[in-house]
Amino acid sequence: MNQDYIIPDNWSIIEEGFEQDLVKSSESLFSIGNGAMGQRANFEEYYSGKTFQGSYIAGIYYPDKTKVGWWKNGYPEYFAKVLNAPNWIGINIEINGENLDLANCAAVKNFRRELNMKEGWYHRSFTATLQNGTEIEVQVRRFLSLDLDEVGVINYQITALNQDVSIVFKPYIDAGVHNEDANWEEKFWEPLNVKNNANEAFVTARTFKTHFTATTFMQNTILVDGKNVNASPSNVASSNDKIEFSYEVSVDRNQSATIQKIGGYTVSMNHENTEEAAKKVLSNAIFIGYNQLLEDQIKAWAKIWEMSDITIDGDVKAQQGIRFNIFQLNQTYLGKDSRLNIGPKGFTGEKYGGSTYWDTEAYCIPFYMATKDQQVARNLLTYRYNHLEKAIENAAKLGFKNGAALYPMVTMNGEECHNEWEITFEEIHRNGAIAFAIFNYHRFTGDYSYIPEKGLEVLIGIARFWHQRATYSTYRNQYVILGVTGPNEYENNVNNNFYTNYIAKWCIDYTIEQIQKIEKEYSSDYTRILNKVKLSVAEINHWKEVADNMYFPFSEEHDVYLQQDGFLDKELVKVSDLDKSQRPINQKWSWDRILRSPYIKQADTLQGFYFFEDHFSKEQLEKHFDFYEPFTVHESSLSPCVHSIQAAVLDRMEQAYTFYLRTSRLDLDDYNKEVHEGLHITSMAGTWMSIVEGFGGMRVKNEALHFEPKIPTQWKGYSFKINFRNQILKVSVQSNETKFSLEGNKPITVFVKGKEILVEPNSLVTV
Amino acid sequence: MNQDYIIPDNWSIIEEGFEQDLVKSSESLFSIGNGAMGQRANFEEYYSGKTFQGSYIAGIYYPDKTKVGWWKNGYPEYFAKVLNAPNWIGINIEINGENLDLANCAAVKNFRRELNMKEGWYHRSFTATLQNGTEIEVQVRRFLSLDLDEVGVINYQITALNQDVSIVFKPYIDAGVHNEDANWEEKFWEPLNVKNNANEAFVTARTFKTHFTATTFMQNTILVDGKNVNASPSNVASSNDKIEFSYEVSVDRNQSATIQKIGGYTVSMNHENTEEAAKKVLSNAIFIGYNQLLEDQIKAWAKIWEMSDITIDGDVKAQQGIRFNIFQLNQTYLGKDSRLNIGPKGFTGEKYGGSTYWDTEAYCIPFYMATKDQQVARNLLTYRYNHLEKAIENAAKLGFKNGAALYPMVTMNGEECHNEWEITFEEIHRNGAIAFAIFNYHRFTGDYSYIPEKGLEVLIGIARFWHQRATYSTYRNQYVILGVTGPNEYENNVNNNFYTNYIAKWCIDYTIEQIQKIEKEYSSDYTRILNKVKLSVAEINHWKEVADNMYFPFSEEHDVYLQQDGFLDKELVKVSDLDKSQRPINQKWSWDRILRSPYIKQADTLQGFYFFEDHFSKEQLEKHFDFYEPFTVHESSLSPCVHSIQAAVLDRMEQAYTFYLRTSRLDLDDYNKEVHEGLHITSMAGTWMSIVEGFGGMRVKNEALHFEPKIPTQWKGYSFKINFRNQILKVSVQSNETKFSLEGNKPITVFVKGKEILVEPNSLVTV
Repeated sequence: MNQDYIIPDNWSIIEEGFEQDLVKSSESLFSIGNGAMGQRANFEEYYSGKTFQGSYIAGIYYPDKTKVGWWKNGYPEYFAKVLNAPNWIGINIEINGENLDLANCAAVKNFRRELNMKEGWYHRSFTATLQNGTEIEVQVRRFLSLDLDEVGVINYQITALNQDVSIVFKPYIDAGVHNEDANWEEKFWEPLNVKNNANEAFVTARTFKTHFTATTFMQNTILVDGKNVNASPSNVASSNDKIEFSYEVSVDRNQSATIQKIGGYTVSMNHENTEEAAKKVLSNAIFIGYNQLLEDQIKAWAKIWEMSDITIDGDVKAQQGIRFNIFQLNQTYLGKDSRLNIGPKGFTGEKYGGSTYWDTEAYCIPFYMATKDQQVARNLLTYRYNHLEKAIENAAKLGFKNGAALYPMVTMNGEECHNEWEITFEEIHRNGAIAFAIFNYHRFTGDYSYIPEKGLEVLIGIARFWHQRATYSTYRNQYVILGVTGPNEYENNVNNNFYTNYIAKWCIDYTIEQIQKIEKEYSSDYTRILNKVKLSVAEINHWKEVADNMYFPFSEEHDVYLQQDGFLDKELVKVSDLDKSQRPINQKWSWDRILRSPYIKQADTLQGFYFFEDHFSKEQLEKHFDFYEPFTVHESSLSPCVHSIQAAVLDRMEQAYTFYLRTSRLDLDDYNKEVHEGLHITSMAGTWMSIVEGFGGMRVKNEALHFEPKIPTQWKGYSFKINFRNQILKVSVQSNETKFSLEGNKPITVFVKGKEILVEPNSLVTV
Repeated sequence: MNQDYIIPDNWSIIEEGFEQDLVKSSESLFSIGNGAMGQRANFEEYYSGKTFQGSYIAGIYYPDKTKVGWWKNGYPEYFAKVLNAPNWIGINIEINGENLDLANCAAVKNFRRELNMKEGWYHRSFTATLQNGTEIEVQVRRFLSLDLDEVGVINYQITALNQDVSIVFKPYIDAGVHNEDANWEEKFWEPLNVKNNANEAFVTARTFKTHFTATTFMQNTILVDGKNVNASPSNVASSNDKIEFSYEVSVDRNQSATIQKIGGYTVSMNHENTEEAAKKVLSNAIFIGYNQLLEDQIKAWAKIWEMSDITIDGDVKAQQGIRFNIFQLNQTYLGKDSRLNIGPKGFTGEKYGGSTYWDTEAYCIPFYMATKDQQVARNLLTYRYNHLEKAIENAAKLGFKNGAALYPMVTMNGEECHNEWEITFEEIHRNGAIAFAIFNYHRFTGDYSYIPEKGLEVLIGIARFWHQRATYSTYRNQYVILGVTGPNEYENNVNNNFYTNYIAKWCIDYTIEQIQKIEKEYSSDYTRILNKVKLSVAEINHWKEVADNMYFPFSEEHDVYLQQDGFLDKELVKVSDLDKSQRPINQKWSWDRILRSPYIKQADTLQGFYFFEDHFSKEQLEKHFDFYEPFTVHESSLSPCVHSIQAAVLDRMEQAYTFYLRTSRLDLDDYNKEVHEGLHITSMAGTWMSIVEGFGGMRVKNEALHFEPKIPTQWKGYSFKINFRNQILKVSVQSNETKFSLEGNKPITVFVKGKEILVEPNSLVTV
């Protein structure tokens, strides 16, 4: 563990005391989001200390020009990245003529942040003594409405502690923002117009190139001792991309003045006229009012928790960890809009450009399938279906033909926007995860309709890719896949990565099965699709030839599949024998040294054993786990969760627990020393899996739920809920019993450690 | 062949006719240089068409900030690159009030360029009809003095053809230049001061960061009909980094006016006060005068040709090709200054940043050893000796220790300045070439003293590197070298590249031999060095363990060493079976496709057979040549020469000749469609080798010269000279006889096709 300033609490993330060095970390940890927009926990008022400003609007991106030292054919010209959106939260504060700036106060006391995950708001409070001697108490609550997802609300209250105070509130909205990670220091927003009317203001700006228009808006109300004083701005300062109001208020000692700011964005993705839309959205929010908005927020989050909460008894840190993960996932993506997806950092930072990675299919879909309506997972699949044409174009750029599809490594709009050849061109296993997610969706939800409707076309494009990407080796008389990067990105350009070869073969086999099934059972879809993609029996036979003769590197000596050709040539020193001063290797070693080492960044061969667990025996899993885990440095956030699940399968509960803590508190405890850049959102779904699939042992086999409940010694018990085929099954695991209860109307059969149990609706079954 | 506008001629490069599309290519082809400075064949007068301005000063570089998409540990922070130097050649011309601009004349006729390689000058002539109807003839000669290597001279003559003409000559010098390939569009030169006095002017500027100071100077003389008219500038226009004089001259129809401009640079590498130095250099050049400077130039080049010329009878294009190569090599590097080296583009363009690559040791040293005083090759070796400390630091950055040295892939000052991980960190075979050059120098010159004086320390650093870089594979019970890029850069991050493993083993073996020899024969050097590098017998034994147990991938089936592990997994389609539309693959294919293909950019396994020819039988060479050459696309300029030599060894004279033409006329005929970027200087030394070592079959074995003279059917004969241990041997090969003559004072023994021949001084021996 690397930091422990976050105070353990079952429902809240809490920081106490003002540490300037922690400001950027806390800005990440206390981020709020509502699926449509997000906001780092930046201060509303001016702050001259180190800060990383971040406001984000889902789906609004910019094609930043690619920056590489040495151009390679096939690199995308642009790198789509999430934009820092205009600032709607800003409220500068003047106290008896002095600007409030926490970096420059005479004293800051009782500083406290709380992110209340149960109710979905962020609160900050402190008392400050200014240079001029004025002492004030500040209480700020902020939230992004789940119900009105274009709206955010701030309640900023100042109490005079030691004298009468003249306060100037200066709320502003500002489109003159820039990205920290911009490649060419370009400005991304072109200001269009700035308007104001009474207490309302609107700044409309348009992104260069992509031409997304956003109107940023605000409305302000001033209260003294909780009573609206119907104030108007005493001054309005505006430029072409910013507008600031001034409200002057005087309060006596012990009196308080409050500004309530309603703000947010309306964007051209959703509205033809964003300014008109902003006016409507704002007037609706004003009509509802701050108090009711807050009440609605609490209800909306209660509804989310009702379905997705996981309780853990007897381990506050573990409880806080899992709730933080579930909370952040729901802040990032709620599944309402199939144009959106889940960026590795959600709305908490700029890294990874807010784009979509294979993380979604490999890690996030199980969480959304089990805790939301199945339409949400379907939307995530549809996202890729909608990008199929671009995936085919992307493959064509790399020399593939005839409808072969290579989904991009990183994307915002279906186009590739990553440019390291060893990743962009070679980390092709991502295609497999996209096919696997279709299989997984059907397996879990039982909804086959997606496949004839949309999924099969995606599968065919992917199968075509694998067929063309494999090379026939005369030498081996088998098909090989050369020059790839597997999930373990600490190997580049290797031959016959087991995971890649395995999922390639599986994709072809699975696609052929689906074609046959759809031919029999969905003949009109079959005809439509075959006509569209022009697939012949001969082509399918070619695929089959590749799948049936795929080569997998294997060591007789160790009785394990090899991560790739030549793995045994490495100096096989275990991580535990590596000097601690050398860790993390990605910060201590040059790239070539990492590459020739045996060290594994995240599950690679074991990722295959995770996806295809039922293809292998438990003994095989154990052998491979024992062979690979000791070389695994877990320097990817996606690593500990898979290992936690597999350790639990192998009854290694201490190890499973350690991995669980690492995945669930990765950001809270900042294991990788990078939380200031933002949170690791996609791995949070892995945390959920490590409880439900790991400790709970949940699997779907032959259309039924199976459980192998286990419990770490540190816990008294835990519970979770699963939306299984539109019925909600609650599972509570205690040390010596497991309880099931069902919200629904049909009894379901579950298997507990292989034993068949019937769970009737609305009754409790104890095993 | 891709272009053929260069007119074949034995001694000159000639272009006739004005083609705007060829201007940038010709600017490269007609470049001039004198080892200390260089100048692309830009027009003196203003030109509004497409042009690539380039003036270069040897050794003056700039640390451009590294630009990569994704940073890797160990990348250098800066990329040293050659700078575009201030412009000293500019002379704007006004003709009856109109600016002369070849892109905007009413007509340009009789346009002709000649680069006279025999005499070392560049001449351009044309007649132009201006928009205002004035018709003039222009004759410009320009050269960079070999004797006064800070000085360049221009003789710019205008003749009035159809009317009296009022001419304004506007010579200028200008430090306000920029680089075409600057990463961040920075300016590189900071102007310091501008001075003028009568017909002289001086602009002093300093490079940012590296703080090289250069004074650019000029002096102008105006002549009418060849007679100095003692003109003074009628106007002086100056800014902080530029100064321009105006000289007004009126000539009658058929009269001519001439400006003689003497210009150049004095730099802080050579002078404490560059401005004072400039004044002295200039006054000396003025004293000598244009005519004498030209005469001296012709003499100086005659001296170079006397030693380095190669004649070819019966094939003008082949003759022109080899002379162009020899001429450019001598323009680039004359071996006077051990701080300088040979950039792949010499002084003809910005690409490769003017830096030093392994090209010097692997390709250039044989040429300089055989055609210059042996001190020149010694200076090239000393360059690396002087960078040893930095090579040790460079290795330390990558995790090596105890004095292991990794020479940079690309360098200007000993520091690495390349940043693609697969090259920078992995193309480590460069270290081998640096050791091989020491061996080669001793083998050819017989001068062993370099090794105890300097070379052994370099060898020890290199041996230490190889020892540490090898990995013991338990699996093979041998040492392997993982994660490298060989000379064939169309493979990245491969294991056990034969060439790398072979040269690594050789380096260790050779170093141990030298240590033993020096211990016996140079005991004081031995003590000095061993104390300095702290080398123990135990450490040497560790090296030996690695060298003695090095693994080399080998195919029993094909009876060849494999380029790397897994080579046979590739789809082995020969280049001749590849559709022509797919070539060159580096322009047509994405990088991953190139990597998984069997295609070879340049000699790799065969580079090993070239360096270590006598370690293998001719049958082995033939097998390997037949196995690898068919997969070789020769998309590196360094490729055809080695293959030409080996084809000649194998008596495949047609193939040898084809490769010879390709290497010798690579730029003249623009095989790679990139001559506008500059010339391929280092491969020109390979052209020389393909005649002397290829057709001539010259080798040094047991301290004696051996020849296996062969002759392409296209030629009547050829001749070359070799400075062998301070005596000059001339070799003339005709279809049925070879003649030897010796300038020197001791008879030498040569072997011709194995037959021992004694060559007496100053007598002709015919075999």
